[in-house]
Amino acid sequence: MKKTAKRIYLDHAATTPVDPAVVDAMLPYFTTYFGNASSLHSFGVEAHEAMEAAREKVALLIGATADEIVFTSGGTESDNLAIRGVAWKQRAKGRHIITSSIEHPAVLETCRSLETCGFRVTYLPVDGFGVVDVERVRKAITKDTVLISVMHANNEVGTMQKIGEIGEAAAKQGIVFHTDAVQTVGKIPIDVEKMNIGLLSLSSHKIYGPKGVGALYIREDVEVEPILYGGGHEKGLRSSTENIPGIVGLGAAVDIAKERISADMKEQAMLRDRLIKGVLEIERSRLNGHPVQRLPNNANFGFEGIDGEALLLHLDQAGIAASTGSACSSRKHSTSHVLKALGVPDALARGSLRITLGRSTTAEEIEYTVSAIHEGVNRLRRMSPTWHS
Amino acid sequence: MKKTAKRIYLDHAATTPVDPAVVDAMLPYFTTYFGNASSLHSFGVEAHEAMEAAREKVALLIGATADEIVFTSGGTESDNLAIRGVAWKQRAKGRHIITSSIEHPAVLETCRSLETCGFRVTYLPVDGFGVVDVERVRKAITKDTVLISVMHANNEVGTMQKIGEIGEAAAKQGIVFHTDAVQTVGKIPIDVEKMNIGLLSLSSHKIYGPKGVGALYIREDVEVEPILYGGGHEKGLRSSTENIPGIVGLGAAVDIAKERISADMKEQAMLRDRLIKGVLEIERSRLNGHPVQRLPNNANFGFEGIDGEALLLHLDQAGIAASTGSACSSRKHSTSHVLKALGVPDALARGSLRITLGRSTTAEEIEYTVSAIHEGVNRLRRMSPTWHS
Repeated sequence: MKKTAKRIYLDHAATTPVDPAVVDAMLPYFTTYFGNASSLHSFGVEAHEAMEAAREKVALLIGATADEIVFTSGGTESDNLAIRGVAWKQRAKGRHIITSSIEHPAVLETCRSLETCGFRVTYLPVDGFGVVDVERVRKAITKDTVLISVMHANNEVGTMQKIGEIGEAAAKQGIVFHTDAVQTVGKIPIDVEKMNIGLLSLSSHKIYGPKGVGALYIREDVEVEPILYGGGHEKGLRSSTENIPGIVGLGAAVDIAKERISADMKEQAMLRDRLIKGVLEIERSRLNGHPVQRLPNNANFGFEGIDGEALLLHLDQAGIAASTGSACSSRKHSTSHVLKALGVPDALARGSLRITLGRSTTAEEIEYTVSAIHEGVNRLRRMSPTWHS
Repeated sequence: MKKTAKRIYLDHAATTPVDPAVVDAMLPYFTTYFGNASSLHSFGVEAHEAMEAAREKVALLIGATADEIVFTSGGTESDNLAIRGVAWKQRAKGRHIITSSIEHPAVLETCRSLETCGFRVTYLPVDGFGVVDVERVRKAITKDTVLISVMHANNEVGTMQKIGEIGEAAAKQGIVFHTDAVQTVGKIPIDVEKMNIGLLSLSSHKIYGPKGVGALYIREDVEVEPILYGGGHEKGLRSSTENIPGIVGLGAAVDIAKERISADMKEQAMLRDRLIKGVLEIERSRLNGHPVQRLPNNANFGFEGIDGEALLLHLDQAGIAASTGSACSSRKHSTSHVLKALGVPDALARGSLRITLGRSTTAEEIEYTVSAIHEGVNRLRRMSPTWHS
């Protein structure tokens, strides 16, 4: 087996460890209550009941009712189902979608795939902090608009959008509003009714639940086409044998998140602020994203004259796991579309570092990380032939 | 928690309990090696390595190479990706698909959805045993045919198709051949190369692995369009953060299946034959599906004058979990499309009972089940106002 030296994990936006209590909740559903939830016998009934209990929990967390929750394989599938689902269902009504230029690829690439099928997509710009102007959303609406999709908080720079206002603008025009809330559910309070949300994507593995499971909230009056066809599970919206241990795990993770949400927010924001203060003492460094309207656990930095991956490697050697941006794009080595949209100069975007805190993060870890970043930036700049301080 | 009285599970075609060794293999990936496989730091590298090791195992089981395996959320997604993936990718070449009338709904409903998008689908009939005539496949091929999809073994009646011959017929015409092998992978030896298979769907939870994970084999030269858009995981064919514990579980399940396949086949076929012999002593009963070319663990019976669900309930009360047909359709209470296609008279199709054996099945369980079926059929017939023996 692999080495297990003490390591500092500061990449909670990429994924989180599963809470041991969540694993405990899941375990019986692998070997004892292992039935297929569609089966009519007692094994099936047990599985079905466990699934419905989890559905109630997820619904409760966001102010929905259980029959508005569809379980999926994760955030990406939820985004795909929401966007393609509404687009195809409502294509007779109109073929225009409004989104932002800093959405997760699961939203952007789905929109792009629809563009090849006769849909028109408006990708709204953001300001230098990554904020979508609600007035721009209103102005982008046409008689052909069938969907507005704006994420709750950005996964790279942590900027929060005014989704309540966007939801209201959409509602006034009778347009369905979808939000990718993968980075916020369980971390920031959400009320789908108050926020006029028609569809909401969430993922289990971002909130200390297992990978491979997520959910899409679909408001009672919103109709979508399925994207997976088959046995008609999830009221025909998501065919596939239900992943009961995963769904039970998501339910358990939601229970824990619900209880901890306030304390987690406060604690992580406090540590994040210490991190930001410490790191910004480095000359020619900056904080990307909004200074205030941001996820409590996110800090995204830019360093002039630094290659982000080199800094990441330095931190990894110091036992610290962080990222340059999203995990999805890590293996692609491309400049972040989010930082580009914020107007971050290329030189700074290449030196970006995302630190995302979690429940286990301690003040000591933050102190150590601040030092390691100082050291890493200094060392890399000293090695650089082009850097002149 | 629920009661755990001794129960007999004979619905292994619906789902299987996860092997405790598989759970053990998965556990570290929930809490210790929990990284996002796309992350560049050590947590990510560990996850990525575990995923690639599992990919090798899956490939090895079916005679493929690792880079031909795409992990999915299960059999349904694999079928959807295979069929829609090829159809959309090759739509310029032609828009005709050949399949059989007894496919799993994940194939049939995907084909039907394509029919609404300008594709033409030929649903080949089967004979009274559920066998697709290879000559009919050949004759159905037109210059517009881009895909032939015929399942390896039927999930309800257990009939095996001559997929090697169908694969050969497809290959001769340069047409991609897909097989849904969800019921056979890990139970019956498969060699994708020898069988001329271009795409093969498999599912973890049918072979004592976890739910929520499966794979699609895509032969190196076969091009498909993705059905989930996003971060570009799985070489752009299946975006979504990879379900590492699930994938590791599938790999572990495959390892065990590979070792046990011969012994399992022999043992289960022997017990199944005892079951069939004992049950067919009931008057006006029959075995649905092929008498010889059938899954070693499947028996599907018809009883005149019996309602299948009533019999199922009787068995459930006797502690036996079985099914009338597929789990997917259990909650829909419709007559099986498979039995219809086999020409089973309605009266008999309504009284169908599927018993599917597993590794834990014992001779004692089979004896007890035979008695319980006799008793159930007799009791239900006595209660029936229309039954005359």
